[in-house]
Amino acid sequence: MKRLEHIGIAVRDLDEANALFEKLLGCSHYKVEEVPSEGVRVSFFNVSGVKFELLAPTRPDSAISRHIEKRGEGVHHVAFEVDDDLEQAIADHETMGFAPINPVPSPGADNKRICFLHPKSTGGVLVELCQERAVSGSAGR
Amino acid sequence: MKRLEHIGIAVRDLDEANALFEKLLGCSHYKVEEVPSEGVRVSFFNVSGVKFELLAPTRPDSAISRHIEKRGEGVHHVAFEVDDDLEQAIADHETMGFAPINPVPSPGADNKRICFLHPKSTGGVLVELCQERAVSGSAGR
Repeated sequence: MKRLEHIGIAVRDLDEANALFEKLLGCSHYKVEEVPSEGVRVSFFNVSGVKFELLAPTRPDSAISRHIEKRGEGVHHVAFEVDDDLEQAIADHETMGFAPINPVPSPGADNKRICFLHPKSTGGVLVELCQERAVSGSAGR
Repeated sequence: MKRLEHIGIAVRDLDEANALFEKLLGCSHYKVEEVPSEGVRVSFFNVSGVKFELLAPTRPDSAISRHIEKRGEGVHHVAFEVDDDLEQAIADHETMGFAPINPVPSPGADNKRICFLHPKSTGGVLVELCQERAVSGSAGR
């Protein structure tokens, strides 16, 4: 069984979007973070236990820039947490017919390792599989 | 404070999508329902306490048909539950600058009354406000 980790929303301007979504979601964002490898700055909202992530591009060639250019602002992805072994979960999803965009997990916001599944394989929904990064120095995952 | 009620996903064929999303979400759908007024047939999944709703059109002029034609399959809306007074919540959202598409709530699936907020006013996210329909005959809401 999966668990919804967050809903990711693509926005053009993070500060403007924070103000808008504070009204819309009825709560303030609790954190802002930059993920240089993805070219995004993100903010987080906790809406009665469900996490919403706003993602704004920090450079014109980032995936979020291209998404906004093509489809406009709005829901970008839905993320599910994988408790145990992210690599195994990616392999399992590939076996089921889902297409990992980055089979090797990349660093995400909020101390996560992430892998996206291509929306062509998931009914048009960009799905993120994510896992909390280990705090210790134990690698191999 | 709001509460996420469900995530709505537009699909072309409900039976095919149910099979796909059972694999993707890791659980079976628990209900199928038709909403004639909206021209949709919907199915529901409970993913560790979060509800996912798949919506397939039953006629070519339904809003879901038009959405799929324009934007393809994928996330269609994000729904938040309103506990008390849906009409008041709609008015409050309008005051805050959000634009109700149907200021008079319409019947939704899963025994709900629903109102959509126009994505142009909500950062590109089609937002549904919903409320459980009263079981008794007490109208006036």
